[in-house]
Amino acid sequence: MSNKIVLLPGDGIGAEVIYAAKDVLEAISKKFNKSFEFSSFDIGGIAIDNHGTPLPDETVTACKEADAVLLGAVGGPKWDNNPSELRPERGLLGIRKALDLYANLRPVKGFEKLLHASPLRQDIIQGSDLLIVRELTGGLYFGEPSERRDNGNSVVDTLSYTRKEIERIIDKAFQSAQLRNKHLTSVDKANVLESSKLWREIVEEKKAQYPDVTVEHVLVDAAAMKLITNPTDFDVIVTENMFGDILSDEASVLTGSLGMLPSASLAEDGVGLYEPAHGSAPDIAGKGIANPIAMILSAAMMLRYSFDMNDEAQAIEDSVENVLNQGYHTADLKSNDGKLVNTTEMTELIVKAI
Amino acid sequence: MSNKIVLLPGDGIGAEVIYAAKDVLEAISKKFNKSFEFSSFDIGGIAIDNHGTPLPDETVTACKEADAVLLGAVGGPKWDNNPSELRPERGLLGIRKALDLYANLRPVKGFEKLLHASPLRQDIIQGSDLLIVRELTGGLYFGEPSERRDNGNSVVDTLSYTRKEIERIIDKAFQSAQLRNKHLTSVDKANVLESSKLWREIVEEKKAQYPDVTVEHVLVDAAAMKLITNPTDFDVIVTENMFGDILSDEASVLTGSLGMLPSASLAEDGVGLYEPAHGSAPDIAGKGIANPIAMILSAAMMLRYSFDMNDEAQAIEDSVENVLNQGYHTADLKSNDGKLVNTTEMTELIVKAI
Ligand SMILES: CC(C)[C@H](C(=O)O)[C@@H](O)C(=O)O
Ligand SMILES: CC(C)[C@H](C(=O)O)[C@@H](O)C(=O)O
Repeated sequence: MSNKIVLLPGDGIGAEVIYAAKDVLEAISKKFNKSFEFSSFDIGGIAIDNHGTPLPDETVTACKEADAVLLGAVGGPKWDNNPSELRPERGLLGIRKALDLYANLRPVKGFEKLLHASPLRQDIIQGSDLLIVRELTGGLYFGEPSERRDNGNSVVDTLSYTRKEIERIIDKAFQSAQLRNKHLTSVDKANVLESSKLWREIVEEKKAQYPDVTVEHVLVDAAAMKLITNPTDFDVIVTENMFGDILSDEASVLTGSLGMLPSASLAEDGVGLYEPAHGSAPDIAGKGIANPIAMILSAAMMLRYSFDMNDEAQAIEDSVENVLNQGYHTADLKSNDGKLVNTTEMTELIVKAI
Repeated sequence: MSNKIVLLPGDGIGAEVIYAAKDVLEAISKKFNKSFEFSSFDIGGIAIDNHGTPLPDETVTACKEADAVLLGAVGGPKWDNNPSELRPERGLLGIRKALDLYANLRPVKGFEKLLHASPLRQDIIQGSDLLIVRELTGGLYFGEPSERRDNGNSVVDTLSYTRKEIERIIDKAFQSAQLRNKHLTSVDKANVLESSKLWREIVEEKKAQYPDVTVEHVLVDAAAMKLITNPTDFDVIVTENMFGDILSDEASVLTGSLGMLPSASLAEDGVGLYEPAHGSAPDIAGKGIANPIAMILSAAMMLRYSFDMNDEAQAIEDSVENVLNQGYHTADLKSNDGKLVNTTEMTELIVKAI
């Protein structure tokens, strides 16, 4: 049986890194005798250019029929002044909703070899290894009404959740914690928001089902501090969509390896979408120097979460670590030893290490 | 003419630090021949204990009649399990709304002498000096509806702003930038929120009135990253209430001197409320070891913003810097040289330096 993978290269460095990941998956396919079937579709800015919409129907249909989706990145200055409906990120928001990708998993882990690039003091960042579980299809992102009122003299957005939406993300977070260090930090603003109060109640209800996991509640403002002062205190963090957007980006710069961080966005029983934590980096697009590792590690997450191929995922992760330990690095990693390589070279090194 | 100052000690270390600030103001009064009149009222947990409500009417009345308000801190474990209406922070939210304190100003500046305590690398934090201007009475904090629906199976909060509310905070931010380094960073989530789109439009409309200020728009997730990777890029940051809550707390730990950071919450023409950026620190309350400097510097902000006493404010700020440069520090500052002092001693040193 072949695993159907849809590639959505998107904009900027998206295409460069996604074909790097494809090369790595083909190496895995040979070594482990697995079969992957690839097809590519447009999303984001390139879809606006080619089809007049950031999310063409055929892209949605292809993703729905796929076993997993790899996404490069969307966006760029070319479309920055477009009206809302014709902006690249609408494609991203649209595909999340269309596939009901409610759980965004963002692991943040420093690579020993790269910690010198962290903006934090070594003694603070050393040993940090956390996973942010962000709710991805609710809250302020899709809540209605979201509109001008009173002849444009006032405006509202709506933060809305159903109990079921909160329950499923809390379950996912507890389960993720069980597979890791069994500590869950639920982040909310229960001293202000009614939605956070319900969130906190549901965490309290659920915790009896996961007796091996310790749970704490932290207010979002305190969490934003603690990520910087005590990053090693965290194991799994679970939070609602907007808080998760802010905290996961904050966390992504802590280790100094933004170009290394993968992410997974998962549906309840269906397809998963995997993308690097970084963006489309229009400033270096087309130069062939982008760091493909975040995308390659996203492909590894895909193997683990969507295809249950743990050994294969591990093989990718080990190869990446290997190549880094040999001192190879792309331009973004600003290492001191001289083994600077471009996208293709880095990819070949990783393929060889597999 | 005497300046009427209401003291709201509140909970935890609140009382310890507020009377330290009062001592410093009395020293200023003598030296500069100014007259301050003090009265104290309850807010927060102690108000719940004494009056059955976190914000007694007499407290509100006194604040409305005052020229300025100093607040220590509210909250503590004793009231953590109270129902919403009987929680200390309701007092804080209530007084903000009652006095229409729409502009929260939080300066973040490292003290040379204390930068070793920063969680960031020295080369990153060195030279940072920013001011966060947070909208304080709108957005998700007070928006209606904020309620359970559907028999508790769903929940909404409302992020709501009027054009006027946005205009006045943007004006305040531009004016603040004019008094500083003339660069304004407006933080929003205009790729998702309708309220952020209006916010961005208003910034664009207003900027012609402040031609000496350069303006940029940064998305809140990117801002959360940039505060850590490039804190020196910022001068004034302006943002809505919840984003401001998160970003100002994030920023407050960057320099390693949370115990040193003051804040001001200002009304349009009326009274201002000044409080330290730190909380009530119940773990060290009553021990006499709290760092009074954030509260003392908040009193300096009061002199500057509410009483137009710039020399007097400067005298306090210089004295604090002086005492720190002599190597004195409270327990929270974890310095290596041995001049550890308690709250009273630190206050006396600052008073003497005035
Ligand atoms: C592009 C934007 C709409 C998106 C989000 O806010 O979710 C991005 O910041 C992300 O985190 O994937
Ligand atoms: C106590 C809480 C309601 C308050 C807020 O969120 O505004 C606090 O975090 C602050 O920033 O002053």
